[in-house]
Amino acid sequence: MASEISKDFIQNLEQLIQSNNDDALLTLLEEEHPADIAEIIDILNLASATYLFKLLDSERTAEALMEIDDNDREKILKNLSAEEIADEIDELDTDDAADIISELPQERVTEVISEIEDDDHAKHIVDLLRYEEGTAGSLMAKELVKAKENWTIPICVTEMRNQAKEVTRVHSIYVVDKNDGLIGRLSLKDLLVASDKSTVSDIYIPKVDSVNVNDNVEDVARIMQKYDLEAIPVVDNENHLEGRITIDDIVDLIKEEAEKDYQMAAGITEDVEADDTIFEKTKARLPWLILGLFGGLAAASIMGGFEDALLTYPELFYFTPLIAAMAGNVGVQSSAIIVQGLANDNIRGSMFNRMWKEIGLSLVNGIILAGLIFLFGIFLNYDINISITIAISLIIVIIIASLIGTFVPLMLNKRGIDPAVATGPFITTSNDIFGIFIFFFIAKLILGF
Amino acid sequence: MASEISKDFIQNLEQLIQSNNDDALLTLLEEEHPADIAEIIDILNLASATYLFKLLDSERTAEALMEIDDNDREKILKNLSAEEIADEIDELDTDDAADIISELPQERVTEVISEIEDDDHAKHIVDLLRYEEGTAGSLMAKELVKAKENWTIPICVTEMRNQAKEVTRVHSIYVVDKNDGLIGRLSLKDLLVASDKSTVSDIYIPKVDSVNVNDNVEDVARIMQKYDLEAIPVVDNENHLEGRITIDDIVDLIKEEAEKDYQMAAGITEDVEADDTIFEKTKARLPWLILGLFGGLAAASIMGGFEDALLTYPELFYFTPLIAAMAGNVGVQSSAIIVQGLANDNIRGSMFNRMWKEIGLSLVNGIILAGLIFLFGIFLNYDINISITIAISLIIVIIIASLIGTFVPLMLNKRGIDPAVATGPFITTSNDIFGIFIFFFIAKLILGF
Repeated sequence: MASEISKDFIQNLEQLIQSNNDDALLTLLEEEHPADIAEIIDILNLASATYLFKLLDSERTAEALMEIDDNDREKILKNLSAEEIADEIDELDTDDAADIISELPQERVTEVISEIEDDDHAKHIVDLLRYEEGTAGSLMAKELVKAKENWTIPICVTEMRNQAKEVTRVHSIYVVDKNDGLIGRLSLKDLLVASDKSTVSDIYIPKVDSVNVNDNVEDVARIMQKYDLEAIPVVDNENHLEGRITIDDIVDLIKEEAEKDYQMAAGITEDVEADDTIFEKTKARLPWLILGLFGGLAAASIMGGFEDALLTYPELFYFTPLIAAMAGNVGVQSSAIIVQGLANDNIRGSMFNRMWKEIGLSLVNGIILAGLIFLFGIFLNYDINISITIAISLIIVIIIASLIGTFVPLMLNKRGIDPAVATGPFITTSNDIFGIFIFFFIAKLILGF
Repeated sequence: MASEISKDFIQNLEQLIQSNNDDALLTLLEEEHPADIAEIIDILNLASATYLFKLLDSERTAEALMEIDDNDREKILKNLSAEEIADEIDELDTDDAADIISELPQERVTEVISEIEDDDHAKHIVDLLRYEEGTAGSLMAKELVKAKENWTIPICVTEMRNQAKEVTRVHSIYVVDKNDGLIGRLSLKDLLVASDKSTVSDIYIPKVDSVNVNDNVEDVARIMQKYDLEAIPVVDNENHLEGRITIDDIVDLIKEEAEKDYQMAAGITEDVEADDTIFEKTKARLPWLILGLFGGLAAASIMGGFEDALLTYPELFYFTPLIAAMAGNVGVQSSAIIVQGLANDNIRGSMFNRMWKEIGLSLVNGIILAGLIFLFGIFLNYDINISITIAISLIIVIIIASLIGTFVPLMLNKRGIDPAVATGPFITTSNDIFGIFIFFFIAKLILGF
């Protein structure tokens, strides 16, 4: 399955758009899934994309709108009237609808909301807009299926039929008491299996995981993953059922988080894609390169301070890129392990134990690598003192680099800063400088220049 | 929610285990979710963990077994008899059961399978073991709910009640023809809403996404994410319904993939956790460090070849760490963007366009950075020729590093190699060497030593 969108298909589509052949366009796109329409929209230019959005039924374009690239969406929405946007919004679940509306410029929000046909839908969306980004409230949807504990099964089934029509996917039926307080859940499976004589209170499961509207979305993601939940109800401070979060939103969140960590490790500050403009890419990449540049200038100054050694021990200068690279690599490795450990919540044990373990590990790696350097020195007939200097420096640099790589992300995390910023140019650059300084300092001690 | 496991709790638990106080242990753990039990098992030592596994009901431990660390699981399974393992397997869905069995040493597999009480369950597991790792078949579960197209709604509901008892979560009901060929699906919601007089063929949705047992799991993950599917049926080459894959398995897969990419970018070859042993960590980290070491040695040799310049232009040697760091950083940035683009399937357009865009971007970044270097040179009273040399070299090194970073992962991907190996020590090391060589080569051209 998964129809690939061919070049021919796009060319054909563009020709039909240019000749305003709406009937042929509708037939051509009739069978396409919204996700495929989104992919097509991403490829087309803005004029063609807008044309398609106005032509196609909002039932199909609304979901496509959710899937396309943020920048494309912003541009297309600019080309649509408030009424046209409201038509799209009418087709979306409240969580997606609120996301779209929150992306609109402030002056259009009220206009679009007033054009939404279903008043309840509009009220729910406005309600969701209250929550701060990053909270469970901002991620939840108002669509859910709930049962009162005193309903009989036949009443419940009838109610479910009505409620289910409004909800794209029924995961769980939440059970509430007469004050709308969450008291449990009812799986659809249990409802299918139940006898008609029982009531909801007989068959509901009184244990239900829930999160608070103000909980952090990352914590919600962790809970849903840990307990393998496909949906989780969201309650306010009085335990009133306010909405639910589904696993598909969490999947997107996990992917975004992982991509952000990866980009930070690679020294890219903002979400940037292969096809973004040069300006967008420069903005994302240049800051880290400037950091690296200053690191390099600092390293050059340190080396300039040891110019007395230039004539007697030129090898020291040949080996600085090696020392800097090893310090950087070790630091990145150590910090990556900590960053992943923190993300997966499995960093345990005391700081003291961790320190000794890192030192032990670095000693093992350092001694092996120093041995290799030493062999290389013999092979190339280096002065034995120089080989010893490089070998000892390497071991010490590796130990210090791994300690920096381990404890910087731990400290950042303690202060509430994303530890992922530490894996990448930041740690490479600082380790370069430390590494080179330590190297020349030890060389001075041993060789006495 | 999400009960945190306190130190006191663990100490209390360990004391109860040491005094063989089984009743108190059972009461203490009565309310714990399998995921929490897994967390407890991960903290306890092997003897205590095994004790708990033997004490607790396999209904509770089976799921915990799936959640704990691979190494811990291997050790605990070694301490359990074939019958005890079969008890756990009996409680698990076929996909998880097959995963556990495939981790057992070859000689225990047959023994454990023969101890499984439910013959159908055993048959299904053996069936799943046939599929190669990385295929949809190896990821799917045999548990699913299916309806025949000619059933009436009341028959269907009765059948669903029976089938649903065997399945942990009902996502969709798959509809098959009389040859067990997949022809569509039936949502539980539609079944709830349907009138008793219709048959399955009246209300089923004839459009159903499916994947083949031999499809790659990464493609399955991409399809399920793209179309926001919570479950997808898996068919064989004759379109017979063989199993289904659910979103929770995909969530795990996405996380693992992202972690693997991140680890490769950081120069860690194997899955390694913060609390692994020194030996495990050395095995994961040392190979990349050795690669870095050889890169450094190559750089040292290149610099040694230009020793004539040492006396006249010592600044060139002070600036090698800067050049190497910039080449490495630019290469990692470029490759990370390509690796993510490939993972998200949004690399489009010709290679030629991409090349010009990278060169343009590098020129912008390079000129800004070279300008900064130049200012620094004026500030520190460097010979103007040296400043010009460093600035021009920096621009050229950045262009070449970004081209290497862009095209190496693209080429690897074309040859079926995971492009993520290119983001990290591999590209940093090769760019270090290229960078330093280009730097001295250009310096020789300009300064003429």
